[in-house]
Amino acid sequence: MSRYRAIVEYDGTEFLGFQLQAQGRTVQGELERAIADVTRSSVRVTGAGRTDAGVHATGQVVAFDVYWRHSVEDLQRALNAVLAEDVAVRKLEITRHDFHPRFDAAARSYEYVVVTADVRRPLLRRYAHLERRALSIEAMQSACEHLVGCQDFAAFGKPPQGDNTVRCVHSAIWRMGSRNRYVFEIVANAFLYRMVRNIVGTLLRVGRREISPEHVRELLDSRDRNAAGPPAPARGLCLTRVYYANDGLWQE
Amino acid sequence: MSRYRAIVEYDGTEFLGFQLQAQGRTVQGELERAIADVTRSSVRVTGAGRTDAGVHATGQVVAFDVYWRHSVEDLQRALNAVLAEDVAVRKLEITRHDFHPRFDAAARSYEYVVVTADVRRPLLRRYAHLERRALSIEAMQSACEHLVGCQDFAAFGKPPQGDNTVRCVHSAIWRMGSRNRYVFEIVANAFLYRMVRNIVGTLLRVGRREISPEHVRELLDSRDRNAAGPPAPARGLCLTRVYYANDGLWQE
Repeated sequence: MSRYRAIVEYDGTEFLGFQLQAQGRTVQGELERAIADVTRSSVRVTGAGRTDAGVHATGQVVAFDVYWRHSVEDLQRALNAVLAEDVAVRKLEITRHDFHPRFDAAARSYEYVVVTADVRRPLLRRYAHLERRALSIEAMQSACEHLVGCQDFAAFGKPPQGDNTVRCVHSAIWRMGSRNRYVFEIVANAFLYRMVRNIVGTLLRVGRREISPEHVRELLDSRDRNAAGPPAPARGLCLTRVYYANDGLWQE
Repeated sequence: MSRYRAIVEYDGTEFLGFQLQAQGRTVQGELERAIADVTRSSVRVTGAGRTDAGVHATGQVVAFDVYWRHSVEDLQRALNAVLAEDVAVRKLEITRHDFHPRFDAAARSYEYVVVTADVRRPLLRRYAHLERRALSIEAMQSACEHLVGCQDFAAFGKPPQGDNTVRCVHSAIWRMGSRNRYVFEIVANAFLYRMVRNIVGTLLRVGRREISPEHVRELLDSRDRNAAGPPAPARGLCLTRVYYANDGLWQE
């Protein structure tokens, strides 16, 4: 029996989220089914981040224990052959027996894609949030200065367990891509439930000039979840990377 | 009764192609249904290009005649409200009564997206063709030199009607994007049936070093459809623009 860790990419559109549920299609369920198909054993998969329904990943990290007599490359190929087309194992390796994708993670990064267009964009609809009007990227970037650092993010989400709502945001930046495409990248040690979508929802209000960049400081200080804007839609969000201590180069 | 022309974007993944068929979902059928819903009249839609099943468009041009008492903007909004999420009218205007999207078109441009990755990429699967190994973009670009000009493209496709297989390719270039992404752009006065996919299928053989760039010249000279490579998959292809004489700036 060996412990494996994998980098997994998925299109979240047709999943009810990462985590196994009593009913409905989940990424964890799809991975467990594929591993069972290939190895003929019932396996539990643990992930680094419990992404919501509709949220994508290019760098989700998962781990599982399984007995496999062939090479790691063979296992990866076999899994990719039986996984549905909206999930793939991008990288696979044997890891230490006590590796835990969530508890051992030092940091995570997410990207959120916003496209501005005055009419719907069918080719972008699955992987971007559409804004009908131009956004002030300067105002949104200015608001980001308030997000960086270790502080109480209670205004932007609930903790997955316990009541500690302090998180350390290492960076939060907007870049402008081509064709009215804006990409928000945020790196933090960990995130509260829906924290990225709640932050983006508020930053979009800043970008639309509904609230000032400085108002984000007030929202943070209020620690009041009801004070912030509505969460941005899931479709724009992607878990891009999970970082591990002494392991910075693992992902590529 | 006025004649309208529209720029239409669609995700071709869940369509059997542009053109109406006896059975199955088509872009033309979806547009005709939406126009009927909104205007309460049965309307025939004509398109500039009959894209295949799975082929996308950001710049398909269509025309139709309809009686509508409100503004053009209202008609566009109403159509986008009732169209399925994988089709949208990006631009709409009243045009002259004898405008024909196909016969009046002076040129068309298509883009084909190729991504190189050694494992499947779920987030790219709908809009790009995946190549498992690195491609020589230099060799593919070198081969493109043979494509430009007015010549017989019988080796790369059948004519939609009649037997004239001469077409004028104005430009054919590969650009390298980020993340192992290659985009082929081709502009021609008109294209034979499956011509872009057949050309890309052959250029990929060049990029894999299976055939030399100069072999494309021999293929063209052979005029033999069976001599060229298999067509590249539909998912990578997108009709990006249709050009009309004295009308260069219409699209944006």
